[in-house]
Amino acid sequence: MQLEKDQIRAHDQRHLDRHNEDFRFLSDRLGSKGMDVDRVVDALADFQVAIPSWALGAGGTRFGRFSFHGEPGSLEDKIADVGILHALTQTAGAISLHIPWDTPTDYAAVRERAATLGLRFDAINSNTFQDQPGAEQSYKHGSLSATDEAARRQAIEHNLRVIEIGEKLGSKSLTVWLADGTNFPGQRNFQRGLVQTEDSLKQIYAGMPKDWKLFIEYKPYEPNFYSTVIQDWGTSFMLANACGDRAYTLVDLGHHLPNSNIEQIVSTLMLKGKLGGFHFNDSKYGDDDLTVGSIKPYALFLIFNELVYGMRNNPQNPDLAWMIDASHNVKDPLEDLIQSLEAIQEAYAKALLIDHDQLTTTQREHDVVMAQEMLQDAFRTDVRPLVQRARLSRGGALHPLRAYRDLEVRRELIQERGKHTVATGL
Amino acid sequence: MQLEKDQIRAHDQRHLDRHNEDFRFLSDRLGSKGMDVDRVVDALADFQVAIPSWALGAGGTRFGRFSFHGEPGSLEDKIADVGILHALTQTAGAISLHIPWDTPTDYAAVRERAATLGLRFDAINSNTFQDQPGAEQSYKHGSLSATDEAARRQAIEHNLRVIEIGEKLGSKSLTVWLADGTNFPGQRNFQRGLVQTEDSLKQIYAGMPKDWKLFIEYKPYEPNFYSTVIQDWGTSFMLANACGDRAYTLVDLGHHLPNSNIEQIVSTLMLKGKLGGFHFNDSKYGDDDLTVGSIKPYALFLIFNELVYGMRNNPQNPDLAWMIDASHNVKDPLEDLIQSLEAIQEAYAKALLIDHDQLTTTQREHDVVMAQEMLQDAFRTDVRPLVQRARLSRGGALHPLRAYRDLEVRRELIQERGKHTVATGL
Amino acid sequence: MQLEKDQIRAHDQRHLDRHNEDFRFLSDRLGSKGMDVDRVVDALADFQVAIPSWALGAGGTRFGRFSFHGEPGSLEDKIADVGILHALTQTAGAISLHIPWDTPTDYAAVRERAATLGLRFDAINSNTFQDQPGAEQSYKHGSLSATDEAARRQAIEHNLRVIEIGEKLGSKSLTVWLADGTNFPGQRNFQRGLVQTEDSLKQIYAGMPKDWKLFIEYKPYEPNFYSTVIQDWGTSFMLANACGDRAYTLVDLGHHLPNSNIEQIVSTLMLKGKLGGFHFNDSKYGDDDLTVGSIKPYALFLIFNELVYGMRNNPQNPDLAWMIDASHNVKDPLEDLIQSLEAIQEAYAKALLIDHDQLTTTQREHDVVMAQEMLQDAFRTDVRPLVQRARLSRGGALHPLRAYRDLEVRRELIQERGKHTVATGL
Amino acid sequence: MQLEKDQIRAHDQRHLDRHNEDFRFLSDRLGSKGMDVDRVVDALADFQVAIPSWALGAGGTRFGRFSFHGEPGSLEDKIADVGILHALTQTAGAISLHIPWDTPTDYAAVRERAATLGLRFDAINSNTFQDQPGAEQSYKHGSLSATDEAARRQAIEHNLRVIEIGEKLGSKSLTVWLADGTNFPGQRNFQRGLVQTEDSLKQIYAGMPKDWKLFIEYKPYEPNFYSTVIQDWGTSFMLANACGDRAYTLVDLGHHLPNSNIEQIVSTLMLKGKLGGFHFNDSKYGDDDLTVGSIKPYALFLIFNELVYGMRNNPQNPDLAWMIDASHNVKDPLEDLIQSLEAIQEAYAKALLIDHDQLTTTQREHDVVMAQEMLQDAFRTDVRPLVQRARLSRGGALHPLRAYRDLEVRRELIQERGKHTVATGL
Repeated sequence: MQLEKDQIRAHDQRHLDRHNEDFRFLSDRLGSKGMDVDRVVDALADFQVAIPSWALGAGGTRFGRFSFHGEPGSLEDKIADVGILHALTQTAGAISLHIPWDTPTDYAAVRERAATLGLRFDAINSNTFQDQPGAEQSYKHGSLSATDEAARRQAIEHNLRVIEIGEKLGSKSLTVWLADGTNFPGQRNFQRGLVQTEDSLKQIYAGMPKDWKLFIEYKPYEPNFYSTVIQDWGTSFMLANACGDRAYTLVDLGHHLPNSNIEQIVSTLMLKGKLGGFHFNDSKYGDDDLTVGSIKPYALFLIFNELVYGMRNNPQNPDLAWMIDASHNVKDPLEDLIQSLEAIQEAYAKALLIDHDQLTTTQREHDVVMAQEMLQDAFRTDVRPLVQRARLSRGGALHPLRAYRDLEVRRELIQERGKHTVATGL
Repeated sequence: MQLEKDQIRAHDQRHLDRHNEDFRFLSDRLGSKGMDVDRVVDALADFQVAIPSWALGAGGTRFGRFSFHGEPGSLEDKIADVGILHALTQTAGAISLHIPWDTPTDYAAVRERAATLGLRFDAINSNTFQDQPGAEQSYKHGSLSATDEAARRQAIEHNLRVIEIGEKLGSKSLTVWLADGTNFPGQRNFQRGLVQTEDSLKQIYAGMPKDWKLFIEYKPYEPNFYSTVIQDWGTSFMLANACGDRAYTLVDLGHHLPNSNIEQIVSTLMLKGKLGGFHFNDSKYGDDDLTVGSIKPYALFLIFNELVYGMRNNPQNPDLAWMIDASHNVKDPLEDLIQSLEAIQEAYAKALLIDHDQLTTTQREHDVVMAQEMLQDAFRTDVRPLVQRARLSRGGALHPLRAYRDLEVRRELIQERGKHTVATGL
Repeated sequence: MQLEKDQIRAHDQRHLDRHNEDFRFLSDRLGSKGMDVDRVVDALADFQVAIPSWALGAGGTRFGRFSFHGEPGSLEDKIADVGILHALTQTAGAISLHIPWDTPTDYAAVRERAATLGLRFDAINSNTFQDQPGAEQSYKHGSLSATDEAARRQAIEHNLRVIEIGEKLGSKSLTVWLADGTNFPGQRNFQRGLVQTEDSLKQIYAGMPKDWKLFIEYKPYEPNFYSTVIQDWGTSFMLANACGDRAYTLVDLGHHLPNSNIEQIVSTLMLKGKLGGFHFNDSKYGDDDLTVGSIKPYALFLIFNELVYGMRNNPQNPDLAWMIDASHNVKDPLEDLIQSLEAIQEAYAKALLIDHDQLTTTQREHDVVMAQEMLQDAFRTDVRPLVQRARLSRGGALHPLRAYRDLEVRRELIQERGKHTVATGL
Repeated sequence: MQLEKDQIRAHDQRHLDRHNEDFRFLSDRLGSKGMDVDRVVDALADFQVAIPSWALGAGGTRFGRFSFHGEPGSLEDKIADVGILHALTQTAGAISLHIPWDTPTDYAAVRERAATLGLRFDAINSNTFQDQPGAEQSYKHGSLSATDEAARRQAIEHNLRVIEIGEKLGSKSLTVWLADGTNFPGQRNFQRGLVQTEDSLKQIYAGMPKDWKLFIEYKPYEPNFYSTVIQDWGTSFMLANACGDRAYTLVDLGHHLPNSNIEQIVSTLMLKGKLGGFHFNDSKYGDDDLTVGSIKPYALFLIFNELVYGMRNNPQNPDLAWMIDASHNVKDPLEDLIQSLEAIQEAYAKALLIDHDQLTTTQREHDVVMAQEMLQDAFRTDVRPLVQRARLSRGGALHPLRAYRDLEVRRELIQERGKHTVATGL
């Protein structure tokens, strides 16, 4: 199934007048404060977030998984799903594959299918946190951090193989996330695990093409863990420095201890030119992988404020790889992803409203009240007309969720795929 | 110093046209969704939050305190400060005294002064968390929870004395917050502490006039503590039930362990008819007493959503006592309180936009996506025109902070009071 | 496979002299402080902890599960496993079934098998946190808290059916743990969920025989959750009070927010006569279900200190149902359980060393230093000889883990069961 | 007042026989496992922890401070207090000054006094987290991180001045702890604050003598904060690397977010040769500055396990500066410090019992159960006889706390100093 621009345009027709009014009113208000609204809309339209191939199926917990109907049963189906998302939102212009869950068989076909839908292949993800059927070595005692050389070798080679796959698809970066760690004090020597991890990452780094980047993800814990080998940004940053110029830290919003100041981490990494990628989601208690912006939208906005500042002021930092890393247990994944994309665009739009020159002046004067007001003023602004305008400018839907439902996309997918396909992934 | 309505009206004059446009536009949008905007504005105008007498001075930390200029040096000055706040915001129509920090000497004068400014005396607060100069007994080893009968008696009698003071001022409720607890395991028997506390609260309850309410605050920890005697809502709720019908739990936003779901606590207490009061502030790490809405505005909105639901559907729960319980270390307290009041009104206004009938239907259909959308739609709406209109309807300022600065209130206070007064309080 | 007392006795023979020396030395030391060592040993020997039927298989995470060899493939095998544990430790004299994972088919045989091994059936557990194959209703939107009456009815009836099963086995209590909750704000009305849960629990309570007890477990969160319907002890306590005299709160060590003071919760519940059961495990970050005592042994000791105090001073509280609720992902479950039982006995033994009369005196004198010293003195004592002596007195092994390995129990189980059985459970 | 060795020896006389028995018994047990007990005792005897000058007075909270009697009223008194501690424990052979709280006037006298008592001057601490009376600049908006050059200059010069003072006393390192941060989002640009801090630290580093070390402390939050400029070990490590070879990270146990794996941080820093110092205390909720080992003794042991491993295997890491950084609100500070020193020695002794070669073998075999057992076996051992023997070998007391009380030290101090002196410090 594929959504055509005409379908979307037709659907939007009856909402267009109201949107135009809304946009005009907001433009006027923002313009009167000296804001360049067009520039904001252009920035929003340019912003593209990758959808991970596994996020299109139902997520699972240790208690099982509630499948939904019309799940994508193949990589081609998943690409089609991202195509639908992108047609509606014009923000999902990239796909991020997980290997081996979504290893292509016919590369040319896959590339062509994606290109047709306006999608590129962003960072590719390896998986050494699960044993694959038929694997010679188990990762029970670690993968890149393993003290067993055979297991470690297998994990390194898997990553090198993932890079080859990525190359064939046009990816330019590899994301490494490890569930390596220990469950009990004493189980493994911390230093040995860290030394092995550094050595493994260096080998992977050495195996990357010269125009590739390596993203090193961190995470303080998994359920049942006592420690993880890359527990925080400091460890990832240290490892990235050890690997070389094209190795970076990747920040996943959910991978922090309670109360962490994530926006400050983002700021520090950009200052040092070492923030490579960003994974969006939200959480209340742990790494809950909930819809972006569903729990702490102000924190997301504060992070975007740092990202926007860094993108403008830190040329030492590369363009970022953005990805949604959420899980969908009770919602239709496509609806959930539409909500996430909307929340991302909203936070970005609000951050774009901040006049950093004026903020700097206020900060220099130690006018704490006014500095806070400037951030809150941006956050309190209803920026939905800007986000709609950005989508509209690219041919997307004014109201993606409404269009998705009105156009009965899921019903059509069920007709195509049936009720009981099960997507690969978690 | 006293702000006159004319001054405020004159100041607002040049912003009025724009406000009218904003309000019209928003009203139109909300009206087209079937919203009764006037009712929302009326509800906002009716909403009044008490200002605690101690919040008008600079807050302190263990490292000292940065005084500001023009601090209120007497209770009369503090009442004048609340008067200024109320004149500007029309939301601060009550004052909450802390005894002995702000014990009146001339009651008639104090009552008259408050009445002139349109202020009533809300819940009165006792203080057994500090030793007062000249006190016979020390609270080093506890006050209402003390195993030393003399100290406990002194604490009970202090509370009874506070009730008498409150009666003379027209207060109708007493708030008890304890810093009783232990610093080390073994220091005191938990059960003994709890039994003593229950007995003390019952004595205080018995000493209240029949039209008074008792609010029992809880808090999991203070710096340097290992335990507090009323550590959570469950303990407070149990104690309130033991005391009687007019004893209630008081929720302070900052008094929770990391990641607590406070809105659910609020909901449960209202269902049981036992939520008596609510203290507003915000925090990032602990009980930080920061400006309301400055860190987690969405959580505040979710709490208001439960409050609004409860106020409409839980007749078993009494009207709530609202108070701001923040501390002001780097800002002018009056500016900080204006920001807090704005954030409270904003969260309340957004919660009022939710159509609970429609939400109930959506919930019954398990349309999780749409239920989330309904909350987010309300939260994303820029409700400032509604809040402004509510203020305006009472003679308050469109932009209280701007008016406060433009009218040079602080400068005038400094002229009146001098630079180096120091307010009583923390 | 069954371990005979003779085998164990023979194995211990070479360690016996040393144990006798150790015990004599420690007895002498404790005796000189006025401690009644025999009473401590007797108390330890009497202490029995239930093993849940599902804990004998490998635990799983969302990433899969690492099976081990010789897993128990049937309920009979699981009972045999508990029999082995009990033979070695003499502390695991009960089994706690999870229905439907381990529904018996031949009750008489199951009862007889257990009796032969000296095991009784403790609290029985229902499971409405997973959809079972062929179930008519799904618990996707809740079980006991569901707003769909059909799902809720199914969940209630499942519990009633579990009670019947328990009756046939001699159980005298039902433990209800719910994974009911929501993933997103707005998904369900908190009050509606709570009201339904209370009603469901009352129906289950009404369906229990008159000599049964109902244990209501609480938990603040599951991965991917925004709220759970019974989030804390306060909610469970409230529900237990609503159900009646034989309804109690059950505390699971892992089910708390960061930094919770669990020992105080235990103390409060025992004072109110409402602590019904206790689930042991340990955790570093969340509900990690790690081996008891592997992360925070001092916290476990402090909890046991309250339990011992309550067992002596709170006749209003019933005898407690003890259970290990841990998960075994990288260890042989039987070895893991042996470690957990050892840690429990150790903490209990240390708590038994505290002279509460003397502690009370010290507390009354506010000698905080000495009160802390008393607890630390008990905790620092190496009580292993006492625990060994208690086991020995019942025919258990001096060193259960060593015996388990020396007697090659797992090898024999593999021979019996083969390598690739998979146990039912998580 | 000064404690003489004879007094202590006389006091211990009646406990000596029992100690000898205890020690013999434990030595025999440990010896039979191949442990070199003498080496452990020697290591314990060599271990010296600095006492900060401010810890000898009562600690304060925002609610006030409970003074005790006989507080040290001068630096000379404080040195005498540390002398008493050292005489009793033989573990407190160093003092760590806080400037300006304890700026010496007569250096020669101070040095001589300390030398007489067997004390050296360890790392010296600057204080730019408080405004000092008469200071030209305020640190209200930051010190080393300030964007105001005058304030920043003052803070740098204060540090340089502290180094000069340290030089005169024989200190060889400077500890910098900052309370610089922000209270609200937007208050200051994170990058600007970090850049300023780095520049300031470099200037201080440049001003240190060539044989000095710089210790950079980190801390995620203070009460009322939204961010701190050096929030975590990663930031400190980055700054230390920027400064140079003799700049190191300093770890304070209380300065971490909930659930942090501190032992892993310690291990990583030692691997990289960048762990400079360590501050001991304990906490339940935040940075509670409680007595060492009073809340989480097993975590302390796990940290010591990493420290011992690092001291043996990481020649790249310097000798560590150890200090107790606790606060004393309800106890006699000298008693509290005795308890802290005992807890430190105990944790160290237990860590010394671990055979790292054997542990390594076990880890290589992935025998998770046995690795855990090895750690627990060490921890469960009652090592007090070893700690006593180490003290005895230096002329300290078998039971320092008992001796302190029996010798009526505090009574004598009160006679000397009176009841109402108040120590400088927090």
